[in-house]
Amino acid sequence: MTGVITDRLTTIGADDLEALARGAAVLGTGGGGDPYIGRLLAAQALREHGPVRLVHPADLPDGAVVFPVAMMGAPTVMVEKTPSTERIGAAVAALAEFLGVTPTHIACIEAGGVNSTFPLVAAAQLGLPVVDGDGMGRAFPELQMVLPTLSGIPCTPMSIADEKGNIGVLNTVDNHAAEALARSLTITMGCAAIISNYVMSGAQARESLVPGTLSLCTRIGRRLDRVRAEHGDAVAAVADELGGRVLHAGKVSDVARRTLTGFARGTAIISGTAPMADPASRSAAGDLTLEFQNEHLMAVRHGIVEVTTPDLIVVLDTDTGEPVTTEALRFGHRVTVVAAPTDERWHSPGGIALVGPRYFGYDTDPVRFDARERP
Amino acid sequence: MTGVITDRLTTIGADDLEALARGAAVLGTGGGGDPYIGRLLAAQALREHGPVRLVHPADLPDGAVVFPVAMMGAPTVMVEKTPSTERIGAAVAALAEFLGVTPTHIACIEAGGVNSTFPLVAAAQLGLPVVDGDGMGRAFPELQMVLPTLSGIPCTPMSIADEKGNIGVLNTVDNHAAEALARSLTITMGCAAIISNYVMSGAQARESLVPGTLSLCTRIGRRLDRVRAEHGDAVAAVADELGGRVLHAGKVSDVARRTLTGFARGTAIISGTAPMADPASRSAAGDLTLEFQNEHLMAVRHGIVEVTTPDLIVVLDTDTGEPVTTEALRFGHRVTVVAAPTDERWHSPGGIALVGPRYFGYDTDPVRFDARERP
Repeated sequence: MTGVITDRLTTIGADDLEALARGAAVLGTGGGGDPYIGRLLAAQALREHGPVRLVHPADLPDGAVVFPVAMMGAPTVMVEKTPSTERIGAAVAALAEFLGVTPTHIACIEAGGVNSTFPLVAAAQLGLPVVDGDGMGRAFPELQMVLPTLSGIPCTPMSIADEKGNIGVLNTVDNHAAEALARSLTITMGCAAIISNYVMSGAQARESLVPGTLSLCTRIGRRLDRVRAEHGDAVAAVADELGGRVLHAGKVSDVARRTLTGFARGTAIISGTAPMADPASRSAAGDLTLEFQNEHLMAVRHGIVEVTTPDLIVVLDTDTGEPVTTEALRFGHRVTVVAAPTDERWHSPGGIALVGPRYFGYDTDPVRFDARERP
Repeated sequence: MTGVITDRLTTIGADDLEALARGAAVLGTGGGGDPYIGRLLAAQALREHGPVRLVHPADLPDGAVVFPVAMMGAPTVMVEKTPSTERIGAAVAALAEFLGVTPTHIACIEAGGVNSTFPLVAAAQLGLPVVDGDGMGRAFPELQMVLPTLSGIPCTPMSIADEKGNIGVLNTVDNHAAEALARSLTITMGCAAIISNYVMSGAQARESLVPGTLSLCTRIGRRLDRVRAEHGDAVAAVADELGGRVLHAGKVSDVARRTLTGFARGTAIISGTAPMADPASRSAAGDLTLEFQNEHLMAVRHGIVEVTTPDLIVVLDTDTGEPVTTEALRFGHRVTVVAAPTDERWHSPGGIALVGPRYFGYDTDPVRFDARERP
């Protein structure tokens, strides 16, 4: 994200979770699941087992056996049916037994949302360190949408467990098939399941993960706290941490949602407000239209595409800088939209094929966050 | 079925398949999938690898490791997308590796329809004998609907493979959960998958399987051939083999079908014909209504339930005695309905809970094939 990570964390304890979860919601770009649930579960585990050690990918030994852990399913269901954390161990154990290996590290496959905190539960329970990094550098909705796919790392063998005690191990011909089969199991399991997949060596993790994203999330969360305590510009602080810029500020004037094939799809219109405190950094005129499918994927103004996936489109409460999920967008809400760069690897042809706007059904080429001049 | 099996087969070769498949269609009671597909695949395997040895359950050593093999999915799809037989070996191998055992015998989990011949492909490929028996003594649509469930034998660990190379291993808390999860995978796999499940010892197979059903199927098929060659009463011959009786003869006057949650549900009305050649054995008067869900599950006359699942309701072409699937029922078709007893264990309280009419949504107690006097 910001290039150089200046203040790396070396452990994550219960006291770090609030900041981590808030930063994860920022990287969630509107989706990624409710970090609050992951935070609750992680807080319990970290209080019981003590802090978890964080290992930067650069410090991983080649022979490390890294087990990513995640929740799969509909965020709305996870809120109502909090996953039983016992089953995390079962998911990891089933996969370890299937592969005949012993995990040495736990990792996050997704930095945005619930899956930045959820793996901490596994790490705390199993007494393993967590990799300070993730497979996306943000949130995306499907299993194959991770940088390890671009590195040729298979999603499977993967395990999938529900809270009732059912478990499956999948071995698929490619990562898209893993998504399709695991998705159907997740739906039958009640729309929330625990998965472990993309098992990789330390060398593979160094190559394919986005480094430092748990530190970045925590830093964003803490800076938000600090700026608010000092009555500073919270939105500008987030944009700064992400290396992004404010794209638009205004009021939510329209939200249209539909739930299609298990995803929350829709459109939100943010009417412009003017004049702004800092006209140079905020676009004042016109409406900005956001297209989302779990995450915000495209921002359009006056019929011109301003920015698209894979770059980050983050909606923040204008007053508090608090991230707003696509589900929480409400008429009249005063929000500021920040655009920020994604990991550069997502802009490769393979990356665009996986997570570019056309994959999500938008008939446009990808537009980078800085491709258009400010008005 | 008929109690005493007088002429047991000891091998099944390519030449036996036509008779076996025809008998399997009779036990399929209208469902169970098209035995023609299984017959084609088995013929190829038996010609390539030679005949398969048949072992009666009574002759199984206690320590035998029996691997049932089956096709799961929509029969209509199997016709269009013939399964790749290579994947049978993959399904068996994945499960064997997961369990850490080596199979000694292959078995049929279902005698009716495609799953009486399909396991022969596995046996031929793997050079293993096949058990002369099955888990139902007929056809039923769901995985948990087998006598091994009543014996407490778990469906899982089970394997499930598609023709593309994807494979899954499921381990579930009960056999209903296995059905639900395997069904969702099957649907995502394109509505046709190869499964291996209910792995059991020789002792368990002796206790829980219906013995002699492959011999019975073959005997029915051969007798049909013989009777037709002699211009005899083919329908009466089938009824005799099943220990059943003719319930009704007439013309199909109405068929209503709907495809619901992956099953072919519907109703057929068979108008009565009179006078009959043998009035003592055939009811001539009125209409008979058949309710089916893949298989024929209930026969009703004048508002009175004549016979229900788990007993067998078999629809035969009146002239040829050829079994008619629920999918092949056509207006004007002259058919005879035969009712026959099922394995007695299905009439236990546990059996009725699994496959009785109420499980299928019919608000009636089970009625046995001989519970009502003939008119």
